[in-house]
Amino acid sequence: MPEIKRPSGRMADALRQVEIVTGFSRHAEGSALIRMGGTEVLCAASVEGRVPGFLRGAGQGWVTAEYGMLPRATHTRGDREAARGKQSGRTQEIQRLIGRSLRAVVDRTALGEMTITLDCDVLNADGGTRCAAITGAWVALALAIRTLRKANVIATDPLIGQVAAVSCGVFGGVPVLDLDYAEDSNAEADANFVLTGTGGIVEIQATAERATFEEATFGTLLGLARKGTAELFTAQRAALDAA
Amino acid sequence: MPEIKRPSGRMADALRQVEIVTGFSRHAEGSALIRMGGTEVLCAASVEGRVPGFLRGAGQGWVTAEYGMLPRATHTRGDREAARGKQSGRTQEIQRLIGRSLRAVVDRTALGEMTITLDCDVLNADGGTRCAAITGAWVALALAIRTLRKANVIATDPLIGQVAAVSCGVFGGVPVLDLDYAEDSNAEADANFVLTGTGGIVEIQATAERATFEEATFGTLLGLARKGTAELFTAQRAALDAA
Amino acid sequence: MPEIKRPSGRMADALRQVEIVTGFSRHAEGSALIRMGGTEVLCAASVEGRVPGFLRGAGQGWVTAEYGMLPRATHTRGDREAARGKQSGRTQEIQRLIGRSLRAVVDRTALGEMTITLDCDVLNADGGTRCAAITGAWVALALAIRTLRKANVIATDPLIGQVAAVSCGVFGGVPVLDLDYAEDSNAEADANFVLTGTGGIVEIQATAERATFEEATFGTLLGLARKGTAELFTAQRAALDAA
Amino acid sequence: MPEIKRPSGRMADALRQVEIVTGFSRHAEGSALIRMGGTEVLCAASVEGRVPGFLRGAGQGWVTAEYGMLPRATHTRGDREAARGKQSGRTQEIQRLIGRSLRAVVDRTALGEMTITLDCDVLNADGGTRCAAITGAWVALALAIRTLRKANVIATDPLIGQVAAVSCGVFGGVPVLDLDYAEDSNAEADANFVLTGTGGIVEIQATAERATFEEATFGTLLGLARKGTAELFTAQRAALDAA
Amino acid sequence: MPEIKRPSGRMADALRQVEIVTGFSRHAEGSALIRMGGTEVLCAASVEGRVPGFLRGAGQGWVTAEYGMLPRATHTRGDREAARGKQSGRTQEIQRLIGRSLRAVVDRTALGEMTITLDCDVLNADGGTRCAAITGAWVALALAIRTLRKANVIATDPLIGQVAAVSCGVFGGVPVLDLDYAEDSNAEADANFVLTGTGGIVEIQATAERATFEEATFGTLLGLARKGTAELFTAQRAALDAA
Amino acid sequence: MPEIKRPSGRMADALRQVEIVTGFSRHAEGSALIRMGGTEVLCAASVEGRVPGFLRGAGQGWVTAEYGMLPRATHTRGDREAARGKQSGRTQEIQRLIGRSLRAVVDRTALGEMTITLDCDVLNADGGTRCAAITGAWVALALAIRTLRKANVIATDPLIGQVAAVSCGVFGGVPVLDLDYAEDSNAEADANFVLTGTGGIVEIQATAERATFEEATFGTLLGLARKGTAELFTAQRAALDAA
Repeated sequence: MPEIKRPSGRMADALRQVEIVTGFSRHAEGSALIRMGGTEVLCAASVEGRVPGFLRGAGQGWVTAEYGMLPRATHTRGDREAARGKQSGRTQEIQRLIGRSLRAVVDRTALGEMTITLDCDVLNADGGTRCAAITGAWVALALAIRTLRKANVIATDPLIGQVAAVSCGVFGGVPVLDLDYAEDSNAEADANFVLTGTGGIVEIQATAERATFEEATFGTLLGLARKGTAELFTAQRAALDAA
Repeated sequence: MPEIKRPSGRMADALRQVEIVTGFSRHAEGSALIRMGGTEVLCAASVEGRVPGFLRGAGQGWVTAEYGMLPRATHTRGDREAARGKQSGRTQEIQRLIGRSLRAVVDRTALGEMTITLDCDVLNADGGTRCAAITGAWVALALAIRTLRKANVIATDPLIGQVAAVSCGVFGGVPVLDLDYAEDSNAEADANFVLTGTGGIVEIQATAERATFEEATFGTLLGLARKGTAELFTAQRAALDAA
Repeated sequence: MPEIKRPSGRMADALRQVEIVTGFSRHAEGSALIRMGGTEVLCAASVEGRVPGFLRGAGQGWVTAEYGMLPRATHTRGDREAARGKQSGRTQEIQRLIGRSLRAVVDRTALGEMTITLDCDVLNADGGTRCAAITGAWVALALAIRTLRKANVIATDPLIGQVAAVSCGVFGGVPVLDLDYAEDSNAEADANFVLTGTGGIVEIQATAERATFEEATFGTLLGLARKGTAELFTAQRAALDAA
Repeated sequence: MPEIKRPSGRMADALRQVEIVTGFSRHAEGSALIRMGGTEVLCAASVEGRVPGFLRGAGQGWVTAEYGMLPRATHTRGDREAARGKQSGRTQEIQRLIGRSLRAVVDRTALGEMTITLDCDVLNADGGTRCAAITGAWVALALAIRTLRKANVIATDPLIGQVAAVSCGVFGGVPVLDLDYAEDSNAEADANFVLTGTGGIVEIQATAERATFEEATFGTLLGLARKGTAELFTAQRAALDAA
Repeated sequence: MPEIKRPSGRMADALRQVEIVTGFSRHAEGSALIRMGGTEVLCAASVEGRVPGFLRGAGQGWVTAEYGMLPRATHTRGDREAARGKQSGRTQEIQRLIGRSLRAVVDRTALGEMTITLDCDVLNADGGTRCAAITGAWVALALAIRTLRKANVIATDPLIGQVAAVSCGVFGGVPVLDLDYAEDSNAEADANFVLTGTGGIVEIQATAERATFEEATFGTLLGLARKGTAELFTAQRAALDAA
Repeated sequence: MPEIKRPSGRMADALRQVEIVTGFSRHAEGSALIRMGGTEVLCAASVEGRVPGFLRGAGQGWVTAEYGMLPRATHTRGDREAARGKQSGRTQEIQRLIGRSLRAVVDRTALGEMTITLDCDVLNADGGTRCAAITGAWVALALAIRTLRKANVIATDPLIGQVAAVSCGVFGGVPVLDLDYAEDSNAEADANFVLTGTGGIVEIQATAERATFEEATFGTLLGLARKGTAELFTAQRAALDAA
């Protein structure tokens, strides 16, 4: 790794401190409060015994997500989306991404005609909230499925893999892992990687903010993401074991 | 107090366990996470150096509140208001009540042309969320004002009193203090009292749910509320002292 | 009663002139145009042979209300809520209150699986519109039930009592009955009382606008409300008898 | 006129009974409650000392209208537009028509940079509400202008003519004047005519509902409209004289 | 025809050049791109095997229309209605008119329980878009019905006539046919005529923009409309023959 | 390239036929109708002499985009977003992507305080509409800038590069270029690449639909995208030369 001065003092390939607390949402079938440095996202899984219209009678379940941010999760207060009367394009983009990411590791036939909704609400924001949401939501989902399995509601485990996400970017000319807000708002490029526990790519969203970036840079970012998600997979499993 | 079997096993005049943690919202000028038994509300105060249109040029500040509930704060998942595109009547009623309650103890001239918004978001709900929001929001407000005073933004302390709220009700024929969800959903009558540290009444909202109630009952409920808010005032001051 | 100079010249314990005209809404199953001084509210009851989803199959009826104000019912024109695209928090709060108040005197099992909706539209506003709406809506409801009974649609009378409402407040330091707009906008405290014909309390909403108020004051206000609603019950019965 | 059996028993060229009561809306600068048979529309004029953005600085005033219908003005209760969150296409079409019709008889330069808004709210509906609204709104507008003139706010009278409207149609094969609901819902053709006191045509909206209609028929309908509006002009002047 | 200087140099009774191209919308059951001078409207017919709620079980079909305008169809960019969150009153008025006009020439019993929706989207606007939409939509409708007939979905032809529309107006004191934008925005009067192939009147919308107009003028405008629609009927049939 | 049977019969590395017609939107400062096989997107550039609030006074311009799809651009009719009252998450996601992509090749300081809005409306959809929109919008943008430069409104050319987009995916196990609808709806993975004329990466959005994909596959897709965009850059330049 090249020399670099990150605002946080972290090494270029260092994740922020990760903490996953389960059971925060008392009523949810599964929940995880994930902290990645100053970013804190509460993920709660809700199970419903029916599926959306387009799946009715198809013998398959559905996994979906909603995303929100408390108005004062950020440096300056943002509008409350409920008061403004609509979700922003950013919010919708993020919740669609979370849903797709989780569905990549769920056998929806094994799930049966049930819907699991993951509510991901940002309590404190310091960059990387969508990635933290994906990583935390997977834990909440796994716990909800554990609840269903214990209750003998589903026979076969529908969870066929682990999924986690991390953002990487080019900051001060150097590729770095797990951007915080100070970096994110000044990065030349920014990429979110959603990867599985077996190394598969679920989703990549790479954006050059001020310039464009080269293919080689992209490769370096992907390498960082593999390192970061490996640590996240470990944290997810530890949280599940402790729950 | 008469014999009664409360679902929680509490005495008729016993509050639930109260805990107020400050500083949860890292970016807010003041914040308090209040827990009253299984109810948990995050209150964050945001300061803005301007006032709504109807106060412009009047040399007075404004204190207002917004209220929300995470979709899975409740036993069964509720719709996300942002997704549904509007706040419910209940939400609007509650946030108006919180704002009025806080304004009762603020000297808005001393505050000057500034707006303080209290975001009260329910993370876990077990009855009494609007009362917990008022009690916690007062702490967040006090901390925000402390921040402004330390920064010498305001010369005179605009906080002229303490305010707290508690719900009382008639459950199983007996007046009880601080209804939880199991009681609230089966109470014959339900009253929210917003009182000040000096014993003044700020707001009373009393509703007979299934029948009507007598004046004497109402008096008993008010007495319970006085006892309960006295304990809440102590908890508020302790939280401020520790912050 | 202490000496006081009310803007209207009324005694402290005097209601405004009350008039209830039935049948104004030609198509409604029951209707009442209530005038309390300069406040004029048209209340129309509509019967529908089905209930909302949450009551389906429960063998019970539903009574609900909607509230509106013509844009120029007030001193200066207000926005038309339909044009603005949503009902204000105040509107929703009021219509929820009207519905709850009426349900307190209806045996919903006797009503059967029917919904009665009370539309309360303010034609002219001079303070106390929500109280006038409750008092008038009860008459419209009673007439609609009379219509249903005459048509032998329901066997048992579901109307188990009378309900009326009045606002009291502290004006110029003196507790007064039935605030008009000139008083309401300058009152130190303002309380709406919803009472039944047999003296039960259905709902109390008391708010200190600029300061707080004492328990004794509250008692005086309740006494005034009892006197005022007694007169309103008489006016309601007279309107029904004349219809 | 040919023999015809109108549901109301009226002659083919007979208007319904017309009554125009002024001053119903106490706070409005001008108001008129118009009754045409069972149709009853409250028209209130509100004056504001500014113009919409597109006219700012143009030295001209603006006259506009809003239209609404109380939910139970009709045989069966309709949705409240404020609750549904938007005005229907029909509502918008009607309020645009009312505004255009009134502007045809206003010298907007003489009016100066002021806006007059006519709120037309249907209290009871029995067909022809948009026409009644135009006829009544003209009276409310004239009264508002009289108020402004008396207060010496405007020097020259901006009201340069009278405008009224009536619907005609083909019912049972016969052209008839002033359709009521029973006729309107079964008419083969339906035309709204907005005419001025000097015989000019302001607006014609003719629609064949089930078939098409011939040019000659159209001529007959226009003749009936001339007769009807002549009577309406007289009623308008009488209402103004009595006010 | 009197001497007149039209901005386009056209004779007073001359239509703009008309062109109707079928099949532009590849997936639609029928489509027509109509050009009238600089106005260009894409009309697409969609067939659905069910009817709106109010017609369910009535053994009748439904024909309806939606209208839109690309934001930059006009001289200066207009707001995108989808982004603004609602359709304007003008849009709703126009799409209701298109639907009514087409239903005048459809035997809805012969159509059976099917809905045909005509989407009319303005790609380029130079005046007369609603009339062009009606004329083009009829062709799209006829093609969709041809598709249904070829597939033996309907036994009897539900299309019982031709319908077309044209706007006429008084420009520079002279009645002219087929107003373009330069004329429309300066016309003294403006009338849209919807006529059938057999000479029946379906709908007339005549508006005096700055003054009023006389009955004789109206007659002249109708005459021009008859001439114009005759040419449009020919163009429609030619488009169908070529399809 | 491996053997593969694409529904269209195309080679794995073959683009669909590309056609870019300029000037379709008569009023726009620049416009391009792009056809990629059966996908047809109309891109219109509108210039406005001001910038959004967050850029006011910053001496920089703004480039943004809006995206829409005609209801019957697709196999079965979709809801009209304007009628439904909001833009879908997908629509917002796409229009944000188009805007970001274009801003990557614009020197916003050279543009000055002006906004260029690109309206991208899909007239016919057969897969790849967002990519076609980016490619076409660049041409419309270049033409609008040419217009501004000819009018001497801007001194320095703000267009600092070419940008185009193409989707690649894994279909039937084989990486293929430029997915059409038949492929897109059955692809195992789907990636949109936004690249510049000098080979820089602007944005990558890669999604595994049913499984995950490997890093090597991703590399192959990027290679195909480079080949495809090279052809699109040529088509863009040809369209500009011919305009």
